[in-house]
Amino acid sequence: MGPGGEFDLIRRLIGPGIELPSGVLVGSGDDCTVLDGGVVISTDLVVEGIHFRRDWITLEEVGYRAASAALSDVAAMAAEPLGILLSMALDPAGAREEAIFLQRGADEASRIEGVQILGGDLSRSPGPLMLNLVAVGRADAPVLRSGTEAGDEVWVTGWLGASAAAVSLWERGGTPPPTLKEAFARPRPRLREARWLAERCGIHGLIDLSDGLAGDCGHLASAAGLAIVLEVEDLPVHPALEEALGSQEESVQRALSGGEDYELCFSVSPGALDDWVDSFQDSFGIPLTQVGWAMEGSGVHLESAGRLAPASGERGFDHFSGEEKV
Amino acid sequence: MGPGGEFDLIRRLIGPGIELPSGVLVGSGDDCTVLDGGVVISTDLVVEGIHFRRDWITLEEVGYRAASAALSDVAAMAAEPLGILLSMALDPAGAREEAIFLQRGADEASRIEGVQILGGDLSRSPGPLMLNLVAVGRADAPVLRSGTEAGDEVWVTGWLGASAAAVSLWERGGTPPPTLKEAFARPRPRLREARWLAERCGIHGLIDLSDGLAGDCGHLASAAGLAIVLEVEDLPVHPALEEALGSQEESVQRALSGGEDYELCFSVSPGALDDWVDSFQDSFGIPLTQVGWAMEGSGVHLESAGRLAPASGERGFDHFSGEEKV
Repeated sequence: MGPGGEFDLIRRLIGPGIELPSGVLVGSGDDCTVLDGGVVISTDLVVEGIHFRRDWITLEEVGYRAASAALSDVAAMAAEPLGILLSMALDPAGAREEAIFLQRGADEASRIEGVQILGGDLSRSPGPLMLNLVAVGRADAPVLRSGTEAGDEVWVTGWLGASAAAVSLWERGGTPPPTLKEAFARPRPRLREARWLAERCGIHGLIDLSDGLAGDCGHLASAAGLAIVLEVEDLPVHPALEEALGSQEESVQRALSGGEDYELCFSVSPGALDDWVDSFQDSFGIPLTQVGWAMEGSGVHLESAGRLAPASGERGFDHFSGEEKV
Repeated sequence: MGPGGEFDLIRRLIGPGIELPSGVLVGSGDDCTVLDGGVVISTDLVVEGIHFRRDWITLEEVGYRAASAALSDVAAMAAEPLGILLSMALDPAGAREEAIFLQRGADEASRIEGVQILGGDLSRSPGPLMLNLVAVGRADAPVLRSGTEAGDEVWVTGWLGASAAAVSLWERGGTPPPTLKEAFARPRPRLREARWLAERCGIHGLIDLSDGLAGDCGHLASAAGLAIVLEVEDLPVHPALEEALGSQEESVQRALSGGEDYELCFSVSPGALDDWVDSFQDSFGIPLTQVGWAMEGSGVHLESAGRLAPASGERGFDHFSGEEKV
């Protein structure tokens, strides 16, 4: 895990080097816990006022987005999804209706991926709406964060920065254009894409982009004990960003540090994707872009116009750094 | 599932008869989701002001109790525990310290059962402290809620009512005696007991007591399409209850409807336990008591002094009925 208050806290809570019990292959520190037999499990909190605001998206979209984000953790292991468990803490006043809308959205996002809601829990909440999503999947050979090797190329799927740009526009009192709002409200977990790539291209290290490219590359780098250099000019900045934000610099910043793109970021041997890029783009209709490479060292570094700088956005979003998300 | 607003809501959300995806053996409607291969998974919300109050127990006890309650769902499948995933939504002001205490308690409860925290999530909370606990286990032959047969005996492990009595005393402004407080703050999941019984005695239907004996027998009865009759005079009312509550009637009521005892309630063929009761009590130091039987029909019925009545507490605790828990 990379630096930052939240991650330091997790590390302090669940330190490395603990011997795992029999039946467990991977404990904390990856996108999912992995059990003997290849079952992968992740758990994700979604809190009103932290992860979303009701004046931004509907409750159906809250449920959709939460389920997609949870399933994205299964994609980040290149695993096949089996289903989700949906827990909801709701104000009793509107609980029934709210539960229906949340569940409808989560169910829709699940069914698009061929799975469904398998269980859950319900409680009253005396405060904000809170959800917890558990995603469950299975993989014969789950791909971990830690597999990157020095010299590897680092690639991402899709476009970056759209979800963070939508949040930025809402925060300024604006209204994001539909394509950016959609990226925030209805992200798609890259489940099929991850398995396609893992089966064909020999992915070494894999993560999904929830904290932002720089932050998540920090996790990849740290898990492998390596440095990652990102080529700023090569980032697949979402094409709608510059017009919507009115600034090329901010567009690049959102693509680099924005978070919640739920695209895949992964490492492969040099040249391993050469024969596959066109076929991937034809199959999935999204770009596949090399954004950097791994080398001996540590941390995330930005290369731009021949100059190297530390990635200031390396932390991604830090829940406890005092910086407000919403 | 039995009647009651919360359960009606769950049913409405996740209706029966949905075809399960390949790889999933049991979806919603039991204590855990069961995957092909015998992995069992449950998810449980714990919300400040609903499930606990900070002036009642320490945060370490909150974590301990939450982990035990989660592992109790694994016990309710007669499964072997593998670990828990702990999600925490915390006020950023004291987040680090609170996380440490909560995690310490959850870790202690886990280690007593030979498992540990395998992962989790962290978020800020703009309101109450909220936890979500995922418990994971494995069983070659998980015991479901639905296996009860007409004529079966219904049994419970341990003593009933202590946890609910502690809550009742706190609510009156009193202080529960240590033995009752301990039952609320540091319950023990009956993991070993469940496997012991399942291996030796041929358990038909099994549930853990979280909603209260009457409510949980409602779930057992409903899952099997049968009626359950409870013998009020036979309930193993916790021996400290009558003195603490000052009322025999209230003691019986707490044992019947109180909830959160985290004991096991199960059904067996008549006489199946005859040779095992003493050995169970010797092994685990808690009683094993027949509290009733199953017959054709529906619902939960109370027999007392030769008279039969519907179980008024059948609903157990209903999160959305308007009745306040805390």
